[in-house]
Amino acid sequence: MFTRDRGQKKAIEEAEKLTDVEIIASSVDKNFSYIPEIPDVPKDSAYLHITTNNTIEGTAIFDVPQTKEIPLVADMSSNILSSVYKVSDFGLIYAGAQKNIGPAGLTIVIVRDDLIGQVEKLPAMLDYAVQAKNDSLYNTPPTFAIYVAKLVLEWIKTQGGVAAVEKQNRAKAGLLYEYLDRSTVFSSPVERFCRSLTNIPFQTGDAALDRLFLEEAEGKGFVNLKGHRLVGGMRASLYNAFPIEGVEALMAFMDEFALKYKGGEVHV
Amino acid sequence: MFTRDRGQKKAIEEAEKLTDVEIIASSVDKNFSYIPEIPDVPKDSAYLHITTNNTIEGTAIFDVPQTKEIPLVADMSSNILSSVYKVSDFGLIYAGAQKNIGPAGLTIVIVRDDLIGQVEKLPAMLDYAVQAKNDSLYNTPPTFAIYVAKLVLEWIKTQGGVAAVEKQNRAKAGLLYEYLDRSTVFSSPVERFCRSLTNIPFQTGDAALDRLFLEEAEGKGFVNLKGHRLVGGMRASLYNAFPIEGVEALMAFMDEFALKYKGGEVHV
Repeated sequence: MFTRDRGQKKAIEEAEKLTDVEIIASSVDKNFSYIPEIPDVPKDSAYLHITTNNTIEGTAIFDVPQTKEIPLVADMSSNILSSVYKVSDFGLIYAGAQKNIGPAGLTIVIVRDDLIGQVEKLPAMLDYAVQAKNDSLYNTPPTFAIYVAKLVLEWIKTQGGVAAVEKQNRAKAGLLYEYLDRSTVFSSPVERFCRSLTNIPFQTGDAALDRLFLEEAEGKGFVNLKGHRLVGGMRASLYNAFPIEGVEALMAFMDEFALKYKGGEVHV
Repeated sequence: MFTRDRGQKKAIEEAEKLTDVEIIASSVDKNFSYIPEIPDVPKDSAYLHITTNNTIEGTAIFDVPQTKEIPLVADMSSNILSSVYKVSDFGLIYAGAQKNIGPAGLTIVIVRDDLIGQVEKLPAMLDYAVQAKNDSLYNTPPTFAIYVAKLVLEWIKTQGGVAAVEKQNRAKAGLLYEYLDRSTVFSSPVERFCRSLTNIPFQTGDAALDRLFLEEAEGKGFVNLKGHRLVGGMRASLYNAFPIEGVEALMAFMDEFALKYKGGEVHV
């Protein structure tokens, strides 16, 4: 069971190697620019899989579906520790560390005990039963990445915990969304009720002007603003470590750009 | 097809999930203290698996078996880049980076093109066909570990390449083996013709004296000298980065210890 967006393509492919997959909700009709409503999950399902934040599309799920007996499985790679979720809502949470936790090469899994060991003959590396039995030390673990993760977790505590970090993220994202919503030059392609706090795509509506923006932005030191090739346009990624000053600087540059090429913003 | 020693136990378990495994050579009769002779490999074998260096036992294979049509697969985790092997002797070489290459969390695989893609429905993470097709970038790779590996590879070049590093390793290991062979207090449990250059187990033959040695050694700053619990005694690991001065210091301490508790070495 999946809600489909591009971020879930790989999860679907892997699951299909082991079992039947049914896509019960999709936003393919509008280029994945919103989170579809999730219907009742068929009762014989092993789990419902969601991705809480979609990096490419800039959509996010804040109110997770209440699936009752069906375990909810979430790929939280791109917004773990950036907003508050209730861990007990999930059967399994997995997340690559590389966005908000530490260096690439570490994956964190939080799994309910009763869900461990349901697949036979998995390679040991991917078998949570083996990992749990060996305290995640079956093979040599990625020690440096784990050490950095520890430092980041301590940093999050000094910020006041995930709730405080979410507040900062809402402030950063809110500033940019507000700008986009009143801009006459730039806009957000994502429906309001499911906008990511982390990945914010935006566009001018003119591909040539988008390219010019990216070029001039890079000249001013704003890097990695290019949207994913499947979506186009621009994308600002505001992970936990990104400061609000960065958002303010970006908006000032957007103002400058709008003035230069479109005669300025007409704020409404 | 495997030659069995403890280091290969996991490789056997994983292979058994996919195919039949036959153990064609083993040194279990003498507690894995030597490398058994490898008989002709049955003609219908998919591959012969060896471990070129056994960390726990301190044994190593320097002359690799010539298996002709049967691909030779080697776990080289603990001596890759520490002595010269001819890559063309192997169908597949794999090695965890954490001994001689960089931080834990990176695995290097060298595989012959024609051996890729022979297993159906592998998880993408473990499917060399997927990795090869995506230039090892199917998922976010462990970037920091790769960067450090680059620095280590450059360092090996400045040393004069693997041949020069092997020469250093032979000097370091030779010094310690020579000491052990003429010592009346300490000895090596490993047969001479298959001694590792990297992991050198040694013992006094008296478990209580071994414990005392480890305790006093640690007090002097010699750490990680404890032998694996399956073997007991002591073990000196002389990876590429370990300096010859460290070996000399260890031998001086062994002399001191021998004098204190056994009235000194009787060199023969």
